[in-house]
Amino acid sequence: MVIVMKHQATREQIERVVQHIETLGYRAHLSQGEERTIIGVIGDERPIEPESFELLEGVERAMRILHPFKLASRDFHPDDSIVKINGISIGGKQIVVMAGPCSVESREQLMKTAAAVKQAGAHILRGGAFKPRTSPYAFQGLGLKGLELLREAREEFHLPIITEVMSPQEVTLVAQYADILQIGARNMQNYALLHAVGEVQKPVLLKRGMMSTVEELLMAAEYILAHGNTRVMLCERGIRTFETATRNTFDVNAIPVLKSLTHLPVIADPSHGTGKWELVTPIARAAIAAGADGLIIEVHHDPAHALSDGAQSLKPENFARLVEQVRRVAQAVERTV
Amino acid sequence: MVIVMKHQATREQIERVVQHIETLGYRAHLSQGEERTIIGVIGDERPIEPESFELLEGVERAMRILHPFKLASRDFHPDDSIVKINGISIGGKQIVVMAGPCSVESREQLMKTAAAVKQAGAHILRGGAFKPRTSPYAFQGLGLKGLELLREAREEFHLPIITEVMSPQEVTLVAQYADILQIGARNMQNYALLHAVGEVQKPVLLKRGMMSTVEELLMAAEYILAHGNTRVMLCERGIRTFETATRNTFDVNAIPVLKSLTHLPVIADPSHGTGKWELVTPIARAAIAAGADGLIIEVHHDPAHALSDGAQSLKPENFARLVEQVRRVAQAVERTV
Amino acid sequence: MVIVMKHQATREQIERVVQHIETLGYRAHLSQGEERTIIGVIGDERPIEPESFELLEGVERAMRILHPFKLASRDFHPDDSIVKINGISIGGKQIVVMAGPCSVESREQLMKTAAAVKQAGAHILRGGAFKPRTSPYAFQGLGLKGLELLREAREEFHLPIITEVMSPQEVTLVAQYADILQIGARNMQNYALLHAVGEVQKPVLLKRGMMSTVEELLMAAEYILAHGNTRVMLCERGIRTFETATRNTFDVNAIPVLKSLTHLPVIADPSHGTGKWELVTPIARAAIAAGADGLIIEVHHDPAHALSDGAQSLKPENFARLVEQVRRVAQAVERTV
Amino acid sequence: MVIVMKHQATREQIERVVQHIETLGYRAHLSQGEERTIIGVIGDERPIEPESFELLEGVERAMRILHPFKLASRDFHPDDSIVKINGISIGGKQIVVMAGPCSVESREQLMKTAAAVKQAGAHILRGGAFKPRTSPYAFQGLGLKGLELLREAREEFHLPIITEVMSPQEVTLVAQYADILQIGARNMQNYALLHAVGEVQKPVLLKRGMMSTVEELLMAAEYILAHGNTRVMLCERGIRTFETATRNTFDVNAIPVLKSLTHLPVIADPSHGTGKWELVTPIARAAIAAGADGLIIEVHHDPAHALSDGAQSLKPENFARLVEQVRRVAQAVERTV
Repeated sequence: MVIVMKHQATREQIERVVQHIETLGYRAHLSQGEERTIIGVIGDERPIEPESFELLEGVERAMRILHPFKLASRDFHPDDSIVKINGISIGGKQIVVMAGPCSVESREQLMKTAAAVKQAGAHILRGGAFKPRTSPYAFQGLGLKGLELLREAREEFHLPIITEVMSPQEVTLVAQYADILQIGARNMQNYALLHAVGEVQKPVLLKRGMMSTVEELLMAAEYILAHGNTRVMLCERGIRTFETATRNTFDVNAIPVLKSLTHLPVIADPSHGTGKWELVTPIARAAIAAGADGLIIEVHHDPAHALSDGAQSLKPENFARLVEQVRRVAQAVERTV
Repeated sequence: MVIVMKHQATREQIERVVQHIETLGYRAHLSQGEERTIIGVIGDERPIEPESFELLEGVERAMRILHPFKLASRDFHPDDSIVKINGISIGGKQIVVMAGPCSVESREQLMKTAAAVKQAGAHILRGGAFKPRTSPYAFQGLGLKGLELLREAREEFHLPIITEVMSPQEVTLVAQYADILQIGARNMQNYALLHAVGEVQKPVLLKRGMMSTVEELLMAAEYILAHGNTRVMLCERGIRTFETATRNTFDVNAIPVLKSLTHLPVIADPSHGTGKWELVTPIARAAIAAGADGLIIEVHHDPAHALSDGAQSLKPENFARLVEQVRRVAQAVERTV
Repeated sequence: MVIVMKHQATREQIERVVQHIETLGYRAHLSQGEERTIIGVIGDERPIEPESFELLEGVERAMRILHPFKLASRDFHPDDSIVKINGISIGGKQIVVMAGPCSVESREQLMKTAAAVKQAGAHILRGGAFKPRTSPYAFQGLGLKGLELLREAREEFHLPIITEVMSPQEVTLVAQYADILQIGARNMQNYALLHAVGEVQKPVLLKRGMMSTVEELLMAAEYILAHGNTRVMLCERGIRTFETATRNTFDVNAIPVLKSLTHLPVIADPSHGTGKWELVTPIARAAIAAGADGLIIEVHHDPAHALSDGAQSLKPENFARLVEQVRRVAQAVERTV
Repeated sequence: MVIVMKHQATREQIERVVQHIETLGYRAHLSQGEERTIIGVIGDERPIEPESFELLEGVERAMRILHPFKLASRDFHPDDSIVKINGISIGGKQIVVMAGPCSVESREQLMKTAAAVKQAGAHILRGGAFKPRTSPYAFQGLGLKGLELLREAREEFHLPIITEVMSPQEVTLVAQYADILQIGARNMQNYALLHAVGEVQKPVLLKRGMMSTVEELLMAAEYILAHGNTRVMLCERGIRTFETATRNTFDVNAIPVLKSLTHLPVIADPSHGTGKWELVTPIARAAIAAGADGLIIEVHHDPAHALSDGAQSLKPENFARLVEQVRRVAQAVERTV
């Protein structure tokens, strides 16, 4: 940490800051500038908050110089982490495609869609049983019934299952049905939930909150890692900005930024990242071109009658075209689908 | 809902949209413009998603015309809701001041701070026992021990208690100690938690998510109201923007906007809304001038040694000055403290 | 400036950074941390870009420690600057109220509105002759004819005039008619225009860009100051955020932040800051409670027929009520109107 | 336009809205909903502002249903516009690459960089002579001398030139030297400048403002088109968001959105879109995969000593690799470089 003293800071104020640093168990290192004195804090700065120094008299600003995450950092784990699920490796040369309906609505809907995504080349089946909805009046998911349908589809199509878990109490239940637990964007900083999935031995797909920085996403991953679960995948799914032409702004920059900061696999969700089905395929191509390790795509056999997210769901034939196009881009960046 | 057809939409496409509307149990009303046809959907539009219509061929856009909330709306409850807690009325002529430490750290810290805020004129004591922290390595709160200290302070100073609840399992426990349950900004869309506090008979202070719109805040309140708890207060606590000079941007506009859209009381949190103690008093004055019904303020007897949020905590003497200044502004807008 | 070296930076890399610093005419100061070496750059850092250091091998990050502005800074000019216009002092104890129509539309409209704002207590008349409009098909202002009407109103009502100037060529012309030159939000970083008004001896009201940070606003002011014009006032007029309930988000935090960073007067524009006439009065009260030195308010004798910004314009009777309410809040914060 | 009346709007209020519509020369079309009456405004709505209707009593909201641009719209010009410059076609099957230094700094720097980008396969040379800088103390560009160096490089390397124009007075001068006039992001809504380049017969590259919506970008293009210049290209260069890990957030979604809304070519600027040279190549690949028609890239023969934007400039050898990788992605989406 670096502490910048005010223009007119006195000798005594500087000394009191140094004492405060030493009381906390760190060493201080002074640097006398032309207009200001700067004090370096020597030691592991992660547990301390820079803001607390700004309360001492004579201090202008305190700034972190290390990232606050450790287990998620590439500095401490230089090689890519590979998450293995039923023989599929995520985070390696192969691009992994997860696809399926936003919500599980019925056996017919799920089986039709699962058959279609399997045939088009998807590796993993997605589908929501417990659904976070902005309106209490909207369809909230089939719950346990949905999980059972997912298990059925899993057996029939030999596809691992990814599904969302929304509360700590449900983690054990969902983990009995799912191959990957998904933490939704609105729960990225639900610490009780992060703690709970950190103690389970199932891979976790952690979606970036629509209001969260890349650093906060990595801190949320750090919670899961710190509780003992090392099989964490990150998901860029669009952030909220002033732009209203799309539902979210897909932050394509975050893909290479994450790949340089962390060893964890990075999955792209162009369905939520755009909110419009016509944009899903070009943004899926872009995500792979930028270096993503996989895709998660909403597909519905009849989007106009979907109970949720119909507007961003692809029809099976469009999904098949997406896989074809993504395959070509993957080859261009020396990867496979 | 209003559905705008494309420039070149055909007769058949228009007819198919009309059929779809009727299938859903609504009536359609056509309006032939110069360049476009517009179709009005007649009936309660709240359960349907406009986006689903955009999938039908020939449709350019579908737009809601009603707000999606109902129980929270002033249209359906024109008079101000007054929330009563131990003889204090929130939402009436009186401005209510809640104050205390960010986290409960020790008996000494809590009692000193409680005594100080009581003397300065606070009506309700705040203090966190379960703390949501961005870092797994930061202080996570005293938990049950913190709740017990809060109860002790409650008895000693005759101040009702507000404290945060972070997960559905803890709602029953926290409700035994607290007079008001606080839902933090990061949990504003934690639907399992909203559901749980909706079923408890304790007033709830619902904080706006840092990147949530006013409409989403009202939809989150709707969840609690729809599950049977009518004693909900809303809290503006700053939103995330591109500006980095302050921790958050206090959205003062939201205060009169909320007062016109809803009957629920509106509390302002200038501590989180600014993130800097020097800004808390001017923004507290501004919030009251804009029409807020109360304040929630972080106070610590020794901010430089606080275990969380020290930078935005007021010392007792500064808090006393804040109350004095707020009292004068309250009089200027014909209210009292 | 502080340069943070990477975890594994070599001795040679550190030496090369030191050499680069010395080549630029600065001195380097090393601080050896536990995980990283930090290098302080000693000397006036304003002309150098931190990013350029990030290109040197082994560098992780470079951070400014000084604000990049100087003439606008309170560090270098601790006392408030008072801008005097025809006997009115802006930036002192008195709150200054500027009011009038968005655009000058006709003699009748301007005279009616000017008479009304004068009577209600406004000190300065605003009105646009050259109008920046997002659509080329919208009313673009009366131009020179508008300036002449403003001069006429100035004589008749003894009110100084503030009006916008949009391009460098027009500065001399507009300065012949106006007492204060307004730089609009969209032109805050139009450097050719800032340069031009910096060379004229007329006070300037510089509006914050809707996408600009407080620091960028101060850098834009620095341009005008650096070209010789010291009579600069800043204007907070709302920023663009994700919130769509209001046209802009009035950044009330910026008022006390600016008052602490700079000596220049700070004016609030609640008309643009909200975009809705019903919100103008509460936000005007809030701005004064937060410490603003003045207000600029859009008033129209018949808003429903205004050629621009009707939705945020007050009728004369509502403006009179605003002045009354602001007067009471001003007294509460020990100022006058 | 659609006007939504309030819940309790009276017959008379509805009639007065209808009269107002008819006075403006439009026809009104009533639609009686269950809770609200909706009034459609029939006729070309572009010249009217929805907000002005919201001032009429009983009106809840007024919403546009058409986009406010016309000449820029694909509705009115379904085929792609191709901009031709010295035999290069922009907007067709070929991806066009513009590259060169941020600022022209010296003959040596420009010639070295021009030679390198030509050899690597760039089609057009970029370089700034007039530079918009946030600090008045930073390098402001070589001005006329810079234009002359650009002409020299143009002759020597047979590369058309793109350079920025910052003020209306300079348009004629810059047009004598440049093949493409660039409007910078900060000037996107500098209407005097848009007007001026609209009257010149040179192609224009219009950069999106860092906090401008796609619709505002198209409205700015509409200004140029409406003044008679039809050779306009749009440029996505990153928007400002809450994320601080990158200088801007490259809005990759905007590429397919623009391609569907407008017939104008869309160029991507990954240098400004990221602000970090290590991210330029992956984002360039992503932009082409998403459907961009070209790239504009900052290249410097010695970035660590660049006078501006060094951090985001590529070295010649990295630029050559970028062109190679982009070529492969272009083939994957059936285009060429």
